[in-house]
Amino acid sequence: MTEIVTAGILVIGDEILSGRTKDKNIGFIAEYLTNIGIDLKEVRVVSDDEPDIVAALDALRKRYTYVFTTGGIGPTHDDITADAVAKAFGVKIDHHPEVVARFQERFGADLNEARLRMARIPDGADLIQSATILAPGFKIDNVIVMAGVPTIMQAMMDIVAPKLKSGVRMLSDTVKANAREGDVGGPLRDIAKAHPDTIIGSYPFMDEQGKPNTNLVVRSRDQDKLNAAMEAVKAMLATINAPK
Amino acid sequence: MTEIVTAGILVIGDEILSGRTKDKNIGFIAEYLTNIGIDLKEVRVVSDDEPDIVAALDALRKRYTYVFTTGGIGPTHDDITADAVAKAFGVKIDHHPEVVARFQERFGADLNEARLRMARIPDGADLIQSATILAPGFKIDNVIVMAGVPTIMQAMMDIVAPKLKSGVRMLSDTVKANAREGDVGGPLRDIAKAHPDTIIGSYPFMDEQGKPNTNLVVRSRDQDKLNAAMEAVKAMLATINAPK
Repeated sequence: MTEIVTAGILVIGDEILSGRTKDKNIGFIAEYLTNIGIDLKEVRVVSDDEPDIVAALDALRKRYTYVFTTGGIGPTHDDITADAVAKAFGVKIDHHPEVVARFQERFGADLNEARLRMARIPDGADLIQSATILAPGFKIDNVIVMAGVPTIMQAMMDIVAPKLKSGVRMLSDTVKANAREGDVGGPLRDIAKAHPDTIIGSYPFMDEQGKPNTNLVVRSRDQDKLNAAMEAVKAMLATINAPK
Repeated sequence: MTEIVTAGILVIGDEILSGRTKDKNIGFIAEYLTNIGIDLKEVRVVSDDEPDIVAALDALRKRYTYVFTTGGIGPTHDDITADAVAKAFGVKIDHHPEVVARFQERFGADLNEARLRMARIPDGADLIQSATILAPGFKIDNVIVMAGVPTIMQAMMDIVAPKLKSGVRMLSDTVKANAREGDVGGPLRDIAKAHPDTIIGSYPFMDEQGKPNTNLVVRSRDQDKLNAAMEAVKAMLATINAPK
């Protein structure tokens, strides 16, 4: 019941590393996982290179409950994610008859070898598909393979999420400090030490008056412990902000 | 002269992994490095946890010419990047007298222990600072440690970039296919095979008419080889788009 479910993300694609495409998937998946009680622990971005993909996938899948990949499942020669996943698991990969049948219906005479690449699914994988998803993603063991295009990836997350086990959700509460980060750093450290089952974060920002301000975020899986730490933070802020 | 200079990025921060903050630094650094002839090969995002930071830093700094880190150099207890970097290099870390002097001038009576944390610099590191950067970044060996706040990180890149060695710049040329990705995938694979010193990428998008279209990008360090591959791509597109 108190199991902690963890995840890693593997983003695959030269276009991210060259700066040509700005990644929008990491932030989305990070927020999504937090909301369903899965802790994102690590993200890696690697190029369209099979050994790099396999090495990163092996590192992440052995370390975390789930690994989510995005990118590299399209119809062109640089889309090699499915093959890399099959290699990482040591299983065969072939055209999936169900996907081929769908493609034949959809593409007719336009179903060429390139499009058929998108029907290549590692043996033993479950398809992630719907009426609006043309080329399916798939789940094999603890690895979830999704498209790189954000709208399609997001639809795939909605399909796969209900099937995942989730842990005790990380709860969170935020208070605006009305102080600069450097003013609260010392007392915050003491509070963090005194409340070991919480995570206390400090996020500086410029407020509406153009003055440096700070959001303080307390996180915990235990509501009572979160509340206790937040009370301590607020008491500290009252002292700091008291008129001198 | 034909040396290839590579890089990794290490983004440090729970706030990225929880989805609370959306990373804006990876895309910026990726594009910046491409423009100055440095190949970004890998990105990792890890939490504010010293063993995780040290492990990722060690993996990246041994593998690539440079490692750029962002985040975790502020004044609060969860800002542990400088200590993790010192540990990874096995060097001591202490308050840097030059930074302390600047802080004393700037903060006066407000210079507390939390702010002094930002003056902790590993032994042997060079400061990355300017009149507009309050808390400096630093460079130690091949690791460049920068702020997580995008505007500050960007100022630090401008300071550090002229001191880096850069390689033969990757050149790039793009053509709009006026075809769907699945229509060009097959011939593109043949062109990629016939032009081994180029990288050919395919990026689907929805064009102004709401129709699926594709950008084809050819990259190479050799202008002649790039031109030859691009000619082949254009000849292929002329065939595909010819009226039937």
